[in-house]
Amino acid sequence: MEFQQGTLAAGTSIDALPLREELRGQQAYGAPQLGVPVALNTNENPYPPSQALIDDLVAEVTKVASTLNRYPERDSVELRDALAAYLTRHTGVAVTRDNVWAANGSNEILQQLLQAFGGPGRSAMGFVPSYSMHPILSSGTQTEFIGIPRGADFRIDMDAALAAIAEHAPDVVFITTPNNPTGDVTALDDIERIIQAAPGIVIVDEAYAEFSPSPSAAVLLERYPEKLVVSRTMSKAFDFAGGRLGYFVAAPAFIEAVMLVRLPYHLSVLSQAAAIVALRHADDTLATVEKLARERERVQSALLDFGYDVVPSESNFLFFGRFDDAHEAWQQFLDRGVLIRDVGVPGYLRVTIGLDLENDAFLGAAKEIING
Amino acid sequence: MEFQQGTLAAGTSIDALPLREELRGQQAYGAPQLGVPVALNTNENPYPPSQALIDDLVAEVTKVASTLNRYPERDSVELRDALAAYLTRHTGVAVTRDNVWAANGSNEILQQLLQAFGGPGRSAMGFVPSYSMHPILSSGTQTEFIGIPRGADFRIDMDAALAAIAEHAPDVVFITTPNNPTGDVTALDDIERIIQAAPGIVIVDEAYAEFSPSPSAAVLLERYPEKLVVSRTMSKAFDFAGGRLGYFVAAPAFIEAVMLVRLPYHLSVLSQAAAIVALRHADDTLATVEKLARERERVQSALLDFGYDVVPSESNFLFFGRFDDAHEAWQQFLDRGVLIRDVGVPGYLRVTIGLDLENDAFLGAAKEIING
Repeated sequence: MEFQQGTLAAGTSIDALPLREELRGQQAYGAPQLGVPVALNTNENPYPPSQALIDDLVAEVTKVASTLNRYPERDSVELRDALAAYLTRHTGVAVTRDNVWAANGSNEILQQLLQAFGGPGRSAMGFVPSYSMHPILSSGTQTEFIGIPRGADFRIDMDAALAAIAEHAPDVVFITTPNNPTGDVTALDDIERIIQAAPGIVIVDEAYAEFSPSPSAAVLLERYPEKLVVSRTMSKAFDFAGGRLGYFVAAPAFIEAVMLVRLPYHLSVLSQAAAIVALRHADDTLATVEKLARERERVQSALLDFGYDVVPSESNFLFFGRFDDAHEAWQQFLDRGVLIRDVGVPGYLRVTIGLDLENDAFLGAAKEIING
Repeated sequence: MEFQQGTLAAGTSIDALPLREELRGQQAYGAPQLGVPVALNTNENPYPPSQALIDDLVAEVTKVASTLNRYPERDSVELRDALAAYLTRHTGVAVTRDNVWAANGSNEILQQLLQAFGGPGRSAMGFVPSYSMHPILSSGTQTEFIGIPRGADFRIDMDAALAAIAEHAPDVVFITTPNNPTGDVTALDDIERIIQAAPGIVIVDEAYAEFSPSPSAAVLLERYPEKLVVSRTMSKAFDFAGGRLGYFVAAPAFIEAVMLVRLPYHLSVLSQAAAIVALRHADDTLATVEKLARERERVQSALLDFGYDVVPSESNFLFFGRFDDAHEAWQQFLDRGVLIRDVGVPGYLRVTIGLDLENDAFLGAAKEIING
C-alpha cells in the first residue's frame, strides 16, 4: 500500500503485527470502487430516492438531530414495527416487531446469527456459487464453511444438497433466493425439504426478494419456528444501499438469541430514522422494480441474440457467459467504461440492471466484445 | 419475555434453539433505558448539539440523500481525513488518514481489533473494574478474557499488572484511561511499562480523553508502532452518542489488519456525513467540556461534604460510595427520579455529570439517601 505523505509509522509492515495466522496474506473483501461512467457491479437500484422521500428524510433528521448527544433507542422498536408492517403487507405473513430484528446491513445480521448459532467447532453450509460474504462471515466468526457446488444449470442440486446435509450435519444452512450471482429462485418445496433435513438452523437470504414474483420463505415460519430465519436487506430493491439496513424475520426466540451477541446501540439514531422514512415511501420506491424487471427482459433478450448464455433471473442482475477468460472479458467491459462484476466463477460475469441508458451502454460493449 | 399480540411463533422458547452452549442462560447487555426525569447513567454529554451543527447536518443530509441508493464509500476516506486532522490538533501527534480507522461506535472498533488479534486460543487482559464491554466483546469474538483486579484505590496496581502480563502473556491488553467507571487516569509512564511488557498488542481505550488534561497515549505511537492502538469515540465529549462513531489511531498496518475482518460498507452514507459535520463543529462542542469539568468539581465537593467517598476523576462521571448495598442505593436514587449506574462493583455507584439542574437533583437525592 502507498500511504499519504507524513503518515506516522508508515514503515511498519502488517507482517510485523501479531495478526491471527489465518488472516496472514489475505486480501480485504470488496468490489473495486472505481470512477467509471457506467457502474453495474453492486446490484443497487439505479433510481435515486424520490424527492418526497428526501424531503421527508430531511424533516426527520431536523427533528432527531437535537438528540444526537444521546444514545439511540437500543432495541429499535419503532423501526421494527415499521419493518413488520412492511413484511406483513408484502409477504402476506402477519408478523409483529417481536418477529423482526434489524442491523447495519444484512452482513451484520448474518454475522450476529453466526455468532449465536455458528462459531468455533460449528459449521455453515452454502450452495455455491452464492453470496460471497457467506464464507467470509463464517470465517470471521470462526465457523467452518462448507460450500456444496450447485448443478451445471447453477440451480441447487437437491440430491447433492440433501446428501451433503446428511454427511456434514451443518449447524447453519444458507439458501440464497433469488441467488446471487445467478439470479435463480429455489422453490418453496425445496426449501422445505432442506429445512426438514437440516439439523440446525436454515437462513433463507432473500436480499433480492422484491425483484421476484415468487413467495417469500416467510410463509414457512409458522411451520418451522425453531429452525427458519429469513434475512432481507434494504440495499437492493429498496434503494437504500447507502443507509445500511438489513433485517430478519423469525420466531421471537431468534431475536432474543441475537440480542445476546449484538453490539449495544448498534443502530444509530440516523439509521433508524432514515430507514423508517424509507419504509414510509416503500410503494413509490418499489414501483421502480417493475421497470427494472422489464429492462432485465430486454437485456436478457439482447444478450441471447448476441450469442451469450444467460441464466434465467428473478433478480436485478444477469449472470452471463460463457467466456474463455471471464476476468479478461471483465477488463474489456471496463475498458469500454462499463464496470460489471467478476465473482470468480469461470466463464461467467454478473451485470446489474441499471438505468435504460446504462443498459444500452452495457449492451453496446457486450456486442463489441462477443464480435471480437 | 412478553410479546406483542399476534406475534408469530411466540410459543417457541429460546431454549428450543440450537444456540451456542456458552450463550445459554445469558442476559443481553445494556443499561436500562427508562423514562426518568434525570438520566445520569450512560456518560453522555448532556448539552444538545448546537443549532449551527444541526443546520450544517441538515444541509449535508439534503446533499447526500439523493445518493442513498448507492453503497457508501467503503473506506470512509473523507471521514478519516477529518478524524486525522482533529487528532493532530488535539493530541499534538501528527497523523494522516492512513493512521485512522472508523466504525459504528468504539464497540465495533474493539470487536474488529479482537477479531484480528484475539479470537479462539488467544486472550485479552483488562484491569477491572473497567469498561464492561471489554469482556463481552472478548467473549463475542471467542477471546479468553483475563480480568486483573485494580488496587484498593481503583488505580491499576502496576506490580500486579506486570506480573499478570508475564504469567498469562495476553495477546491483547486493554488500558482504559480515563477509566470507566472509576474516572482515574493511567500515567504515560505506566502505559509505556505495560506496552514494553506486553507480548501482543495494547489497546489504550481513550473514550473519555477529551475530559482529561492528561496527554493522549498517541504520543507513544511513534515508539511502539507494532504494538499500540489508541481507540476513541465521538459518543462522549463529542456529543454524538446517537451518531455511533468510534475510531482508532495506530500505525497504518493496523488499518490494513482490520480491513481483513471489517464488514464491507459498515459505515453508512449518513454516519460518514454526520460525523464529518460533527468534527467541523468540534471546537464549539468541546467548549461544553469545561462546563462539565466545573460541575464535576462542584458535585464531588458536595458528595464529600455529605460524607461519601469519591474516586478522583478526570472524566464526566464520578464513582462514589460506599454503600452497604449498592443496588439498593441505586433503587433509592431511581425512586427519586434519578437514574444512575450500578456497574456491579460492591459498595459503589457511578453518576454521569449532567446539566446543572440535573446535578442539583442528583445531589438532593444523594443527601437524602445518606441521611437515611
